Amino acid sequence: MKYNDIILRTQRNDTDSAISPGTRLLIRGGFMEQIASGIWITTPVGLMVRRNVENLVRKGMQTTGAIELELPILQPKTLWDETDRWQKYLKENIAFHLTDRKDNEFMLAPTAEEVITRFAANNLPTYRDLPKIFWQMTPKFRDELRPRQGIIRGREFIMKDAYSFNIDESSMAHSFDLMEKAYQQIFTQCGFDFVQVTADSGTIGGSGSAEFMAISDTGEDVLWCCQNCDYKGNQETFHNLVENATPECPKCKNTNLEEKRGIELGHIFQLQQTYSKLMNAGFMNSDGIKSFYWMGCYGIGISRIAQAIVEQSNDEQGIIWPLSLAPFTGVVIPVNTDKHLDTAINIYTQLQQAGINVLLDDRPKHIGEKLTDAELLGWPFQILIGKNWDQDKKLEVRQRWKKNYDREMFTQKDENSTPLATLTLTELQNYLVKCINNPNNQLC
Amino acid sequence: MKYNDIILRTQRNDTDSAISPGTRLLIRGGFMEQIASGIWITTPVGLMVRRNVENLVRKGMQTTGAIELELPILQPKTLWDETDRWQKYLKENIAFHLTDRKDNEFMLAPTAEEVITRFAANNLPTYRDLPKIFWQMTPKFRDELRPRQGIIRGREFIMKDAYSFNIDESSMAHSFDLMEKAYQQIFTQCGFDFVQVTADSGTIGGSGSAEFMAISDTGEDVLWCCQNCDYKGNQETFHNLVENATPECPKCKNTNLEEKRGIELGHIFQLQQTYSKLMNAGFMNSDGIKSFYWMGCYGIGISRIAQAIVEQSNDEQGIIWPLSLAPFTGVVIPVNTDKHLDTAINIYTQLQQAGINVLLDDRPKHIGEKLTDAELLGWPFQILIGKNWDQDKKLEVRQRWKKNYDREMFTQKDENSTPLATLTLTELQNYLVKCINNPNNQLC
Repeated sequence: MKYNDIILRTQRNDTDSAISPGTRLLIRGGFMEQIASGIWITTPVGLMVRRNVENLVRKGMQTTGAIELELPILQPKTLWDETDRWQKYLKENIAFHLTDRKDNEFMLAPTAEEVITRFAANNLPTYRDLPKIFWQMTPKFRDELRPRQGIIRGREFIMKDAYSFNIDESSMAHSFDLMEKAYQQIFTQCGFDFVQVTADSGTIGGSGSAEFMAISDTGEDVLWCCQNCDYKGNQETFHNLVENATPECPKCKNTNLEEKRGIELGHIFQLQQTYSKLMNAGFMNSDGIKSFYWMGCYGIGISRIAQAIVEQSNDEQGIIWPLSLAPFTGVVIPVNTDKHLDTAINIYTQLQQAGINVLLDDRPKHIGEKLTDAELLGWPFQILIGKNWDQDKKLEVRQRWKKNYDREMFTQKDENSTPLATLTLTELQNYLVKCINNPNNQLC
Repeated sequence: MKYNDIILRTQRNDTDSAISPGTRLLIRGGFMEQIASGIWITTPVGLMVRRNVENLVRKGMQTTGAIELELPILQPKTLWDETDRWQKYLKENIAFHLTDRKDNEFMLAPTAEEVITRFAANNLPTYRDLPKIFWQMTPKFRDELRPRQGIIRGREFIMKDAYSFNIDESSMAHSFDLMEKAYQQIFTQCGFDFVQVTADSGTIGGSGSAEFMAISDTGEDVLWCCQNCDYKGNQETFHNLVENATPECPKCKNTNLEEKRGIELGHIFQLQQTYSKLMNAGFMNSDGIKSFYWMGCYGIGISRIAQAIVEQSNDEQGIIWPLSLAPFTGVVIPVNTDKHLDTAINIYTQLQQAGINVLLDDRPKHIGEKLTDAELLGWPFQILIGKNWDQDKKLEVRQRWKKNYDREMFTQKDENSTPLATLTLTELQNYLVKCINNPNNQLC
């Protein structure tokens, strides 16, 4: 794609309201734009990032055998009354709600346990229909008291929610395990530094839940990691479990606990029969007796992931996208537009034909400005056509991702300590194909 | 995919409230399920149909150079006030609206001219940034007085909306032409019998608009087709243009006009500068003078398409999906499950490996019941492993789509006059690959 066909605007300076690096950089790079408190436009290049997240999540869901569907955003009060959550959500002011022209009340889906439980009751009448996991990736809403940190805590966002229906507790635990593994794989592939913590179930209900947290100083959640064993818990769990004056690990009793901050990426719950009993939703078991479903529910904050990764992966120049989420693997830049544009177009075309999704910066701008934008926008590779090309038909390749760069390939450094390599087009092509085909391709 | 992993429930009888064949059959086949008036769950197999529609539309949008983004569902009143449409929409009771915890008012997006015009003003400051076409495929909402006919007139639905920004009238007309051609291609590929009619611009405003209508007796719109020339108009246009006692064609004055009914699939508008002037949204032209954008807007009813095709394409037995929208190209059915299941699994696996997306009906049911479900669910081909297989390793292939069947291939008929062929697996595979690769693949 050519630069101006997808990148609308970059800004050199931060806006006032943006506090965390993720918020600042996504706004400056033009990945998102606010239209009201907690409500954001996903720009074309921002949507490319989100599609990459969605595709990783979709593949992860497929490994669990879950099937995709779509539940409505407008959910009738009558359904939420069956579990007494209408009053609860309205009292706590969590949900947006409205009245239609005939005075029927609706909530804008913050989650969908009621709808999916009713759907299951209509469609999974016997044990032969179980287990089933349904999932969707759709807009969700929360009327936050203080929307903040960009799309980390927005009022309208995309959430992946999945719900399992099982015949008994052990089958429920099996579905939970499948999801747990899928989540670990998804967050690893996204390139996160994350931990899995024992957590409370909160307003969702049920017992047995785990949270997946991206480690970040800008995170709103506190978590405790035992330095002696593998125990990790969030603050609520910690308060519940530890009653001593000197906090100690609930698992090994060690008092050497490290406090960290995190951003919640996902949360999985064993709901037991909480919802199915409240909604009288069940199936005929193999003895011909009606039983209530054993359920689990499994959420991932899809839009939030795009920002959480930037909170972790940035520097003073801008965003550092992991390859797996980057809208483009790299940007092809003619150092001198007048002199190098034709070659740049040619190289860009050959890379595209080799299945490598690159951007062409064909703007008649000074090289300094193009590099500043490339650093801000965070493409993993910058591919420069300049004096190395004039001299011996080699490309100057800069790797944005400094942390995990390929030490053998990238031996030189420029003055800003960006790892550099001079490569022929064939060498570059082979290298990038290898990177892209690496399943955990944030490391190449 | 195996039958029970995707098909949840089929019903032999119609529900009371369902009037049109599309509504009846999509409910009976389990493609959608109502949870409140005009609000529907898209089931797993229903979502497969919609994804096929979305993919055709996405490809069509790419031919125009339009770029995808996502605008929020919650749109602030302040933006709608700029064009005076807040009062208009509320007065006509078209839109759902709500108040947040801080008493700010929002509309649930029925359309997005205001948001996208503001976005353009922020991001397309000069003539060098133009033309641009933005598009999205997202949930939309209308608080219909009488939601009816399933997802044809629902209150929550998926709409593709696109908006073009141009420097002048002729550039606007060019974007309009690109979209018009893309729409013709999309609706042809979906398999529609459709006409393009001259239409009014309604509440959207502007001038120069065209509607794409699927011909259907169950359609709510009336259209007039001149039998002498190529003029086709909708009822409003007809009333506006024809003032004579004897209606005559506004183009050739002929009075031989045929009245038809149709379902609106898409609507495209030349908005001129209506919105950009009201919102003071413009760009610097090549003379350095501020000008207002010339705009167009372009809608397609995505969720509606899945039902509109069923209104056109059905028989007494059930749905007849065109190949382009069918969730599965065909269903592999062992006639006697005990005897033929292993062979069926083998053939199913080989077809899947050849890139042909088929369903395996591995249920221990009587062949009559499996065929009844296959007819109801409307897969283009039924692939039976039965006595022809026992005798000479041939499959009995039935083509659901009677209208356009391949006369050379399907020479036999069963008692319900379904065209039949007995084919080896290789013959079938070659034939289906040929069908799938046909760009207008509803005809094979």
